[in-house]
Amino acid sequence: MDTPNAPLIRRFAEAYSWDGVDHLPYKEDGAAPFKAIARQTLFSEAELACELRYFEMAPGGYSTLERHGHVHAVMILRGRGRCLLGNAVHAVAQYDLVTIPPWTWHQFRAPADAAFGFLCMVNASRDRPQLPSAEELRILRADADVAAFLDGAAASASTEA
Amino acid sequence: MDTPNAPLIRRFAEAYSWDGVDHLPYKEDGAAPFKAIARQTLFSEAELACELRYFEMAPGGYSTLERHGHVHAVMILRGRGRCLLGNAVHAVAQYDLVTIPPWTWHQFRAPADAAFGFLCMVNASRDRPQLPSAEELRILRADADVAAFLDGAAASASTEA
Repeated sequence: MDTPNAPLIRRFAEAYSWDGVDHLPYKEDGAAPFKAIARQTLFSEAELACELRYFEMAPGGYSTLERHGHVHAVMILRGRGRCLLGNAVHAVAQYDLVTIPPWTWHQFRAPADAAFGFLCMVNASRDRPQLPSAEELRILRADADVAAFLDGAAASASTEA
Repeated sequence: MDTPNAPLIRRFAEAYSWDGVDHLPYKEDGAAPFKAIARQTLFSEAELACELRYFEMAPGGYSTLERHGHVHAVMILRGRGRCLLGNAVHAVAQYDLVTIPPWTWHQFRAPADAAFGFLCMVNASRDRPQLPSAEELRILRADADVAAFLDGAAASASTEA
């Protein structure tokens, strides 16, 4: 048997944390805009071609609006929230599955009054995200629903979806 | 944007199923012993180096006792149950993480009175599982706790762990 880096069993603990799993900054690079979101890497092993991460936003938090060549395979784990995929806003709830295809603008947003968390499976080897240019952002915002989403128009956990 | 095979959003539905996700036989090969377990492939895409599957056992169900060179990265999603890892039996509950290292004998068992389900991330390209030989099974069963586990000694969801 190999000796893995992590214990074979890691217990789920209060407030969506796991024994022996660190709460990490969402991004190492502070240049990208985001708010009130943390990252926990649940599985990252030399023998695995993907990683499984858990991202959680505090009420009102959001991930970076970005795109990249790699695919995200997402399962909502905690609560409900909204995601932008391309030029469409979707309400999503616990255990819903979200596929983010290559080069698709995307962002997740928690409701104003509750935490929102999701699992994300991603290739261990992957390209870096791109941020929208001013022109790309202008095109995205031409859709009123997308603009309202990006402006964080208030949604509460009880009213959405 | 690529056109993926599956819709970008697939809703979680009653009884731990997902819109557009088929309930599949646990194994295509009926030669391996297992009981009352079904497989749903949540993510399997050409651009992803891993797959994410959901396995669920009915009360009293169990997966095949097997080992292989590839790693399993497991998160319990529904209920609680037990797993054999090497020569140790572990009680596991919702959202606990289980790493199954290469060439480690493993089996999951639902309690007698409740369903038990887990997510499993695995490399898309992987080796086939091996079943224990009579001699390997004899060695495993030399441990009384392991033998009781393999014999399905009754555990209920309310009493274990």
